[in-house]
Amino acid sequence: MNENPMNLNDGFTCPLPLTEYKNVLLAHGGGGKLSHQMIQKIFISQFKNDLLDPLHDGAMFTLGGARCAFSTDSYVINPIFFPGGDIGTLAVNGTVNDLAMCGARPLYLSSAFIIEEGLPMEDLWRVVLSMKQAAEAAGVQLVTGDTKVVDRGKGDKLFINTSGIGIIPDGVEISPQRAKPGDKIILSGSIAEHGIAIMSVREGLEFETQIESDCAPLNGLVETMLATSKEIHVLRDPTRGGVASALNEIAESAQVGISLREEHIPVSEEVRGACEILGFDPLYVANEGKLIAFVSAEAADNVLKAMRTHPLGKNAILIGEVVANHPGTVIMKTRIGGSRVVDMLSGEQLPRIC
Amino acid sequence: MNENPMNLNDGFTCPLPLTEYKNVLLAHGGGGKLSHQMIQKIFISQFKNDLLDPLHDGAMFTLGGARCAFSTDSYVINPIFFPGGDIGTLAVNGTVNDLAMCGARPLYLSSAFIIEEGLPMEDLWRVVLSMKQAAEAAGVQLVTGDTKVVDRGKGDKLFINTSGIGIIPDGVEISPQRAKPGDKIILSGSIAEHGIAIMSVREGLEFETQIESDCAPLNGLVETMLATSKEIHVLRDPTRGGVASALNEIAESAQVGISLREEHIPVSEEVRGACEILGFDPLYVANEGKLIAFVSAEAADNVLKAMRTHPLGKNAILIGEVVANHPGTVIMKTRIGGSRVVDMLSGEQLPRIC
Repeated sequence: MNENPMNLNDGFTCPLPLTEYKNVLLAHGGGGKLSHQMIQKIFISQFKNDLLDPLHDGAMFTLGGARCAFSTDSYVINPIFFPGGDIGTLAVNGTVNDLAMCGARPLYLSSAFIIEEGLPMEDLWRVVLSMKQAAEAAGVQLVTGDTKVVDRGKGDKLFINTSGIGIIPDGVEISPQRAKPGDKIILSGSIAEHGIAIMSVREGLEFETQIESDCAPLNGLVETMLATSKEIHVLRDPTRGGVASALNEIAESAQVGISLREEHIPVSEEVRGACEILGFDPLYVANEGKLIAFVSAEAADNVLKAMRTHPLGKNAILIGEVVANHPGTVIMKTRIGGSRVVDMLSGEQLPRIC
Repeated sequence: MNENPMNLNDGFTCPLPLTEYKNVLLAHGGGGKLSHQMIQKIFISQFKNDLLDPLHDGAMFTLGGARCAFSTDSYVINPIFFPGGDIGTLAVNGTVNDLAMCGARPLYLSSAFIIEEGLPMEDLWRVVLSMKQAAEAAGVQLVTGDTKVVDRGKGDKLFINTSGIGIIPDGVEISPQRAKPGDKIILSGSIAEHGIAIMSVREGLEFETQIESDCAPLNGLVETMLATSKEIHVLRDPTRGGVASALNEIAESAQVGISLREEHIPVSEEVRGACEILGFDPLYVANEGKLIAFVSAEAADNVLKAMRTHPLGKNAILIGEVVANHPGTVIMKTRIGGSRVVDMLSGEQLPRIC
């Protein structure tokens, strides 16, 4: 790493090559290999501490005796209005879901707006109304905020950051490292709807049925699951990078193998058709209202049944299991009887879908 | 408000005119009257709840028995490197200071990056190093993060959001509503350095001495002050909009009058000169390492003495007091013996200085 040290003005030695790339590419934000490389080499190498966990959806710590989860996300989706939601819905649900994936009950959200000069005031108003509704639906309060305006051409209509705080109930221990051989893997419903809804709008595609984003708050579903069993080891919402990237991250983090069955992974007909037209593999396409749960074999049936009683889990299904073989690797038994490695995406498949 | 209702697609009735402006202007982000109008009419009208306080630097609530403060800010400063700091220093210190202004001890920060495609990886690296140093200096941990990349021309190099959580010690009760007649107003040092440092770079001005941003973490100074007395009623760091806007917000919020003495407000010679060249009133120019404290008359001397023992408060000075007259209004006794109303800024004096 030190063959090409470089002096910065402030006296730091920058261990080039920091990454293989001199400049940031769109793909560095895509949730795939390049994102991971940049996050590891630039951010984690410097910010590393006990609480920072790059492979979880939020940080966890104790405040005044309560176990808390804390998470942040900036939303830069384009377009800001889309079938099934808008950037406001997404900004609330996305952070609510990150907290829920820590096993936390989300309580308080911040919201910070970066507005491009010229945004119609009415668009801002519509987004704010969506955020209000989404917060009410998720049972969280928006408690603090910030507003910045940037010159025309120096932003893109509207970016929103939400950060959130939640409380983790006693007995709940959820973390990607807890995946272990024997765990059953449950998916809460059909995949790839959010990413395809966005891409359809961008590409001007029209289908018989409009594909809507699945954007939804998952905290209620998680509460239902945790009320049934505390033997839920990992929760993850497969957003950027889709189911494939989420499972790869968990396999790597826990150093376990993951075995999937393609035929069990639900994809709607419309989404499958759109994926074919657009050339996407639905396993890599973003979801905003789905979760993956790793549950002990003993508890899996009950958790699955409980999920199916909840509107957001009614199509929940077992898609695979954790194995001791091939640690760090996700292998899928295909429909036609073969098996293939489901790798992490290298670049970005869909830029700016969240 | 209902003379011109407008139906949005989603069935909401939008009570136009929401604001006097159809589109968002740069001035809506400037911290002056237009910012306040938009924040009140668009955000507060919808998000209103017990915890949301638009006129404070953060929200306060109890978690697991501990009183917490929670704050968020997005940093969109241009340029991202400036004399005395960079966007990374600012992003850490800015949120640390917002928490400190709630009387809280800052503990945990999130950091979310919106990167424009093409940003040199080395620039990102330098900013990350600055954030690491700033976090160490302030005694806070960066515990969770997010990275997004937007297309070239859809952002401006780098925007950073930081949100933070802190604990408010027992006996500390700080809020703008607590300002009351008789309180002494203390300023921690000379003003307008941050805004002028930024504008000097943008305008390519050169002075005999380079003007540096005062960007610094104020939590240590606040701890020193609170160790001396709990009779500190209000704390505020006069960032966007400067000392004038901060004092106007407090006067309005507490419905008290504020009386200032111009001769007591410290402005360095270089800054005063630059203000004259650039046509700015230093009272409206942003600071990033100064605070204003409203302290009971009995405790003011001791607090002032304590502040002067701290490097960031060595030039602390009494600049005025709270009065029962002219509630909501700030009046300054000028150097030449007259007096004038110090109004809130109408638009923005300096766009994108934080």
